[in-house]
Amino acid sequence: MPEAVYGPGKRPEQCVSIVGELLLNGTGSVLLTRADEQQRLACTAAHGQAIEAGRSLLWRAPTDSVATDVVIVTAGTSDLAVAEEASLTLRAYGIQPSTIADVGVAGLHRLLARLDEITSADAVIVIAGMEGALASVIGGLTGAPVVAVPTSVGYGAALEGVTALLAMHASCASGVTVVGIDNGFGAGCAIARILT
Amino acid sequence: MPEAVYGPGKRPEQCVSIVGELLLNGTGSVLLTRADEQQRLACTAAHGQAIEAGRSLLWRAPTDSVATDVVIVTAGTSDLAVAEEASLTLRAYGIQPSTIADVGVAGLHRLLARLDEITSADAVIVIAGMEGALASVIGGLTGAPVVAVPTSVGYGAALEGVTALLAMHASCASGVTVVGIDNGFGAGCAIARILT
Amino acid sequence: MPEAVYGPGKRPEQCVSIVGELLLNGTGSVLLTRADEQQRLACTAAHGQAIEAGRSLLWRAPTDSVATDVVIVTAGTSDLAVAEEASLTLRAYGIQPSTIADVGVAGLHRLLARLDEITSADAVIVIAGMEGALASVIGGLTGAPVVAVPTSVGYGAALEGVTALLAMHASCASGVTVVGIDNGFGAGCAIARILT
Amino acid sequence: MPEAVYGPGKRPEQCVSIVGELLLNGTGSVLLTRADEQQRLACTAAHGQAIEAGRSLLWRAPTDSVATDVVIVTAGTSDLAVAEEASLTLRAYGIQPSTIADVGVAGLHRLLARLDEITSADAVIVIAGMEGALASVIGGLTGAPVVAVPTSVGYGAALEGVTALLAMHASCASGVTVVGIDNGFGAGCAIARILT
Amino acid sequence: MPEAVYGPGKRPEQCVSIVGELLLNGTGSVLLTRADEQQRLACTAAHGQAIEAGRSLLWRAPTDSVATDVVIVTAGTSDLAVAEEASLTLRAYGIQPSTIADVGVAGLHRLLARLDEITSADAVIVIAGMEGALASVIGGLTGAPVVAVPTSVGYGAALEGVTALLAMHASCASGVTVVGIDNGFGAGCAIARILT
Amino acid sequence: MPEAVYGPGKRPEQCVSIVGELLLNGTGSVLLTRADEQQRLACTAAHGQAIEAGRSLLWRAPTDSVATDVVIVTAGTSDLAVAEEASLTLRAYGIQPSTIADVGVAGLHRLLARLDEITSADAVIVIAGMEGALASVIGGLTGAPVVAVPTSVGYGAALEGVTALLAMHASCASGVTVVGIDNGFGAGCAIARILT
Amino acid sequence: MPEAVYGPGKRPEQCVSIVGELLLNGTGSVLLTRADEQQRLACTAAHGQAIEAGRSLLWRAPTDSVATDVVIVTAGTSDLAVAEEASLTLRAYGIQPSTIADVGVAGLHRLLARLDEITSADAVIVIAGMEGALASVIGGLTGAPVVAVPTSVGYGAALEGVTALLAMHASCASGVTVVGIDNGFGAGCAIARILT
Amino acid sequence: MPEAVYGPGKRPEQCVSIVGELLLNGTGSVLLTRADEQQRLACTAAHGQAIEAGRSLLWRAPTDSVATDVVIVTAGTSDLAVAEEASLTLRAYGIQPSTIADVGVAGLHRLLARLDEITSADAVIVIAGMEGALASVIGGLTGAPVVAVPTSVGYGAALEGVTALLAMHASCASGVTVVGIDNGFGAGCAIARILT
Repeated sequence: MPEAVYGPGKRPEQCVSIVGELLLNGTGSVLLTRADEQQRLACTAAHGQAIEAGRSLLWRAPTDSVATDVVIVTAGTSDLAVAEEASLTLRAYGIQPSTIADVGVAGLHRLLARLDEITSADAVIVIAGMEGALASVIGGLTGAPVVAVPTSVGYGAALEGVTALLAMHASCASGVTVVGIDNGFGAGCAIARILT
Repeated sequence: MPEAVYGPGKRPEQCVSIVGELLLNGTGSVLLTRADEQQRLACTAAHGQAIEAGRSLLWRAPTDSVATDVVIVTAGTSDLAVAEEASLTLRAYGIQPSTIADVGVAGLHRLLARLDEITSADAVIVIAGMEGALASVIGGLTGAPVVAVPTSVGYGAALEGVTALLAMHASCASGVTVVGIDNGFGAGCAIARILT
Repeated sequence: MPEAVYGPGKRPEQCVSIVGELLLNGTGSVLLTRADEQQRLACTAAHGQAIEAGRSLLWRAPTDSVATDVVIVTAGTSDLAVAEEASLTLRAYGIQPSTIADVGVAGLHRLLARLDEITSADAVIVIAGMEGALASVIGGLTGAPVVAVPTSVGYGAALEGVTALLAMHASCASGVTVVGIDNGFGAGCAIARILT
Repeated sequence: MPEAVYGPGKRPEQCVSIVGELLLNGTGSVLLTRADEQQRLACTAAHGQAIEAGRSLLWRAPTDSVATDVVIVTAGTSDLAVAEEASLTLRAYGIQPSTIADVGVAGLHRLLARLDEITSADAVIVIAGMEGALASVIGGLTGAPVVAVPTSVGYGAALEGVTALLAMHASCASGVTVVGIDNGFGAGCAIARILT
Repeated sequence: MPEAVYGPGKRPEQCVSIVGELLLNGTGSVLLTRADEQQRLACTAAHGQAIEAGRSLLWRAPTDSVATDVVIVTAGTSDLAVAEEASLTLRAYGIQPSTIADVGVAGLHRLLARLDEITSADAVIVIAGMEGALASVIGGLTGAPVVAVPTSVGYGAALEGVTALLAMHASCASGVTVVGIDNGFGAGCAIARILT
Repeated sequence: MPEAVYGPGKRPEQCVSIVGELLLNGTGSVLLTRADEQQRLACTAAHGQAIEAGRSLLWRAPTDSVATDVVIVTAGTSDLAVAEEASLTLRAYGIQPSTIADVGVAGLHRLLARLDEITSADAVIVIAGMEGALASVIGGLTGAPVVAVPTSVGYGAALEGVTALLAMHASCASGVTVVGIDNGFGAGCAIARILT
Repeated sequence: MPEAVYGPGKRPEQCVSIVGELLLNGTGSVLLTRADEQQRLACTAAHGQAIEAGRSLLWRAPTDSVATDVVIVTAGTSDLAVAEEASLTLRAYGIQPSTIADVGVAGLHRLLARLDEITSADAVIVIAGMEGALASVIGGLTGAPVVAVPTSVGYGAALEGVTALLAMHASCASGVTVVGIDNGFGAGCAIARILT
Repeated sequence: MPEAVYGPGKRPEQCVSIVGELLLNGTGSVLLTRADEQQRLACTAAHGQAIEAGRSLLWRAPTDSVATDVVIVTAGTSDLAVAEEASLTLRAYGIQPSTIADVGVAGLHRLLARLDEITSADAVIVIAGMEGALASVIGGLTGAPVVAVPTSVGYGAALEGVTALLAMHASCASGVTVVGIDNGFGAGCAIARILT
C-alpha cells in the first residue's frame, strides 16, 4: 500500500523530511498531495524526480499494473485538478485510469457520445462542482461502483462545494457513494479499496 | 388576471369569505391553493363546484385558451402535487399545459424518450426534489424559457428542498430561473408573465 | 437486478399497485422500503408474505447466494433500523450479510473483541449516528471497501444526522465513502455495485 | 446563439485559446465574462478589440437588434458590475437594454419617479444585494417577466448574497423568478430565452 | 412597569399561580402571552376577565393613556397574531396603537394609500414575514423610530422567519432596528422603552 | 439630516466625487464611513480636514448639540472601532455620546463600577462580539432604549458575528433591539431616530 | 460507576429488559433518562420504585455521599428539566448538588443575591437557553470548574439551542467548558469525572 | 492566577503596553497568545525573553510545579499549534503537561500503544480537527476529566472546525466537555480550574 503525505500547512523542509522517512522505511510508492511550488522544488531536489500531476507528486510508482478499467469523468475543465489528484492516487496503487473531461449534464450530447466508455468501466469516479448533477446521471447509466467527488468549483449558491456534496447525497440514483469536497485522493483510495 | 388565495393558516369560513368577495367583486377566475379537506368542502358548498387538481381549486376558469405549448416535467411521482398546483395556476390564465411525469435523470432513457415534446415546447416548468438535477439537464436541451421548482421531496441531505434550491441556482445550464421550494403557483405565474 | 419501491408519501393502494406491477412485469426480487403498518398489511394481503426486516419487505428473494462476506457494523442499538434496511437490500441482491451491533467507539473494547470478523470481511457497512466516529476507526482497521451511513440518531448537536454526515466526510481515514442520512438502502446498493 | 466563456480560474493563455477556437469554429458572438486584467489584455491582443462592460468582453456583437424593451433595475451603485454583465450578455443576443440604477426601496421616491419606464418594459431584470427587497416591489408593479439577481453586495447579515437569494425566493410578489448570486450572465440568458 | 408571563411550556395551574402572585404583589398590569386555550380558561376563571387579543391576556390595563401615536404596520393578514401581541403589550404600558394591516410591498398602492398615517407616527412597528421587505420601505419613508419584527409567516425559503430576520438586518434603510422572530412582545417593550 | 457615504467598494476618486456633490448640494453634515487610507487622503485633500474617528470622517459637524445623554458601552477593546463609527454618526446628528469601554460580562465588577452612568443614560448602545451577552445584562439594568450591535470580534464559534447576532435576538432581556453585524452607523442612526 | 440507559426510541419492554439486566449483572446504581410515562410505569412495576426527578429514574442510589459542594444554576424556570437530569445523574455518583434557579442575567440583582453560594462551590453547572449569557457571567465570577449546558429553551432566533451552544463557545470567560444541547446527563458525568 | 493577552487585532505597540502594564501591576505570570512575528519581537525587546511555544509567549512562569499528570493528546501533527497553546497556558498555572501527538483514530494501533499514559493521567486534553473522533474514543478509555478542543484542521466538509465541534458535542462518550474551535488557551484554563 502506498504512503501519502498531505502538503498544505507543512513547511517545505517538513515535507522533505516526512517523504524521506517514508521512502527510507518502506519500499512502496510515496505520494505527496496538494504541494505548492516550494514544497515541490524542495522534495524533488532532495528525493529525485517524481511523477507529477496537477499539484501532486508520486515517487516509486508501482511497475505492475492492476488489470482494470477505471474511468474518471469530470463535469467541467475546472474539475481537472481534482481529477489529476484522483488519477495519481490510483497510479500509486498500480491502476491506470482514463479520463473523460467536460461532459457536464447541460451538454447531454457530449456525455452521450462517450456512453460506451462509461458503461463498460469496472468503476467510475465522477467529479463535479456547481450542482453536482453528473453523479446522478452516471449513477443511472451504469451498475458498476460510482464514487462521486463534489468540487468547490462554482460560485455564489455553490457554497464552495457544499451544494454539490448535499446534492450528491440527495441523489436520485441508488448506490452512488460520495467522498469529501475536492477529495480526489479519497476517491482514488476508495476505488483502490474496491479493486485491489 | 386571476385572483389567488393561499389556503394554509386560514379557517374554512375565512376561505369562504375571501373567495366569495373575489368572485363578487371581479369577473375573472379565482384560485384557492393548498386547501385542506375542510376548506375545500366549505368553499364548494358556498360557491359551487370548482375545477380541482391536487389541493387547489379553480372557479370561473377562462373559456378562451392561450395558444401556447407549455410542458411541466417532473423528476418523480412525488413531485406531482406541485405539478398540479402549477398546472391549475396556468389554467387560471387560460393556458392548458401538458405534463411529463417521472423522468428523473437517474433513468435517462425515460427522459430521452420524451425529448421531442420537451424541445418543441414554448416554455418548460421543471419540478424536482432530491438533488434537482433535472433542471440542469432540461436547461441544456432547450433554448426556451425554463422555470425550475425545487420540491421538498427527499429525505436527510435533501434538507426539505434547500439542497434542490441551491443546486438549481448552481446549475451549469445558463438562463434557467428558479422559484421557491414547492412553489408550483409561483412557477405558473412566472410562465403567465412570459406568455400572456 | 431487484426493483425497489420507497414507501413514504404513497397511499397503501399505490404501494399495492406499484409492487404488483413490478412483480408482474419482471421475474426478479421486489423490495418495499420504509413501509408503514397499513402499507405492509395491504401489500402482504395482495401479494403474499414477504421477508420482513425492520420496516422493509422483500418478495421473491434470490435463491442463489453470492459467495461473499459483508459485515454491517452499527455504533448503537438505535442504528439497527437502518442496518435492517441495508441488510434486506443486500438480500435482494443475493448477499447474506452478518451484523455486528452496538460497538460504538466509546466502548472500544467491545469493538476490538470483534476485530477479526471486521478485518476479514470483503466489504463493511458502518452505520453510526451522533458523531459518526465509528467510520473513521473501521476505515483505519481494514483495507476493504467501507461504506458509511450517517444516521439521524442523537439529539441536539447531532442535527438529525448532519453532524455525522459531515464528520464522515471529514474523516481522517482515507477511502471511506458515504451515502445519505439513514440511507441503508443506498448502502446496500453501493455494496451490490461493488460485489455483484 | 452566442458562445460564452467564464474567466475565473483560467490562465490568460487558456482564455486566448478557448475564445480563439470559438471565434474560428463559429460565426456568432463570443462573450468572455469576469475577466481579470491579464485575461483582458491577452485576449484583446490576440483577437482584437471587444466591446467591454465591467469585467466582460464581447466579440462580434450581432448587428441586428431584437425590437424589445428590456430594463435592468439596480438597487444600488454597487450592483452595477452585475448589471453590466447582464447588459453585455443581452447585447450578445442582439438585445439593447436600458438601465435604471440606484433605486433601492429605502428611497421609494426615486423608484416611483421611474415608474413609467418600468411598467412599460417587456421584461425587467432586478439586481439587488442586501435584503433584495427591490424584487418584491418591482414584481408587484409590473405583470411582465421579472428575473431577480441577488448580489453579494452588503456585509454582515447579508451573508455574501445568501440573504438576498433567500429573500427573493420568499418574495410576496408572485411569479418573480431568481437566478444565482451575482449571476448577471444567467439573468441575461434567461431574458434571451424569453424574448428571442 | 407591567409584569409579563410567557405561556408556552407552562401548565395551566402554573400560569394561574404565577399570574396570581404578580397580581397580588404589585398594583400594575399583568400580561400573559401566547396562552393556549386551557391556560386562558384557567387564568380567567381564577383571576377574572382580561383584555384579550390574539393569544395574549392583559389584567389591570393602565387607565391613563400615554399621549403618543404608534402605528403597527403588517405586510400580510397572517402577521396579525404578532401584531396583536405587540398591541396588547403596548396597552400594558398605557399606549393605544393603531394598526395598518396587509400593506405588503408587492401591492405598493395599498401602502402608499396609508402614507400619511405612517409618516406622521411617533414610532412604527413593522411586522413582516416572507422576505421582510416592508421594513426597508417604511424605514425609508419616515425618520421616526422603526422597530421591525420578522415573522415565521411564509414557507420553504422563508426558513421559518430566519430569511426575514437576516433581510431586515441587511436592510438598505439606515437606523431600522430588529427584534426576534415573531416577537411582538419584544417590539412592544422596545417602543415602551422609547416613549415612556 | 446628515448625508452618509459607505466607503468600501468605491474608488478614492468616486468617494471624492460623491462627498463633494453632497457638500455642494446641501448644507448639513456629510459622513464617510469605513474609509481606507487612500480614500481618507483623497477626500481630505479635496474637501478639507474632517473630524476623524476610527475609519470614519465627518465634514460640517453640527454646531448645535442635542441635550441628551447617550452612552456607548463595549464589551472589549476590539469593539472600539465599531463604537467610534457609532459615535461619529451620532455627532453628525449633533449628539455627543460618552463611551464606556471593556466592560464585558466575564468581569462583572468592572461593569458594576460604571452602573450609575449606564442607568442614568437616555439611551444606550451596546457593542459586543463573541457571545454578545452584554446586551442582555444591560437590557436588564435600564428601562431606557437599548440598541445592540453584534460585532465580528471573536473567532471560531463566534462565526464572524452571527453568534452574537443570534444571541442578542434570543436575549432574555425584553425590548432590546438589534442592528446588523458591526453596524455602528446603523446604531447611531437608530438612536438619532429616537432622540432627534 | 453507575450504568445509564437513554429512554427515547426504546419500547417500554426494552427499557424494562435493559434496566433489569444492568441491575442483575452489577451492584451499582442504574439510571434511566428521558423516560416517557409508559417507560416509567413499566420499569417501576418491574424493578420497584426509583428515585424520580423530572423524566429520569434512579435505582440503587449510592448510600455514601461524596463530600463536595456542587451548585446547579439555571437561567430560567424552563431550564429546570435539564437541571433535574443533571442532578439525578450526580446523585447516581453519590454527589448531592444544590440548585439555584431562575437567575438569568436580565435580572442581575437576583443573581448577585446568590453570589456567595456560587463563588464558594467546588464546581458549577450552568444551564441556560436563549442566548446562554449566564455561562459567561458565572465563568467570570468563580475560578472553580464551570460546565455549561445550552438548552433548547427559547424560540425563533434561539434555533433550538444552537444559539446558546455557539454563544457558550464564543464566551468571553476563559476555561468554561460546554456539553451538548439539553444534555444534563453529560454535565453530571463531566462533574463526576472531576470530583470522584 | 496568570494574566492573558490575546494577540490578534492588536498593534505591536499595544501588545507591548498591555503586557508591560500587567507585568508592572502584578507579580504573577503573563501570557501573550497567538502573537505574530512583529508582536513577538516588540514584546521580547521591551520585556525580555519569554518562554515561547508555537505562537504564544510566557513571562514569569511559576517556579513551583503543581504535582499532577496532565496529558495533551492530538489527532494529527497539524493540531500541534493548538497543543502548544494549551501547554503554555498550563505552564502559566504551574502545570507541566506531557504531549502525545499524532494518534488519530484511523491508526488505532498508534493510540493503543500509548494507552497506559492516557488512562493513568489525572486529566486529558484531546485536540482534533477533521471529524474529531478522538474525543469519543479517549472519553471511553478514561474516567478522568476530558476536555476536547476541535481544531480548524481539515478542508471541505470539516467546515473550519464546525464539524469537529458538532461531532464532539454529539459524542457517544458521556461527560466529555468541549471548548471553542482552536481554543488551546481555553482548554488549559479549564484544566487549571479543575486541578488548581
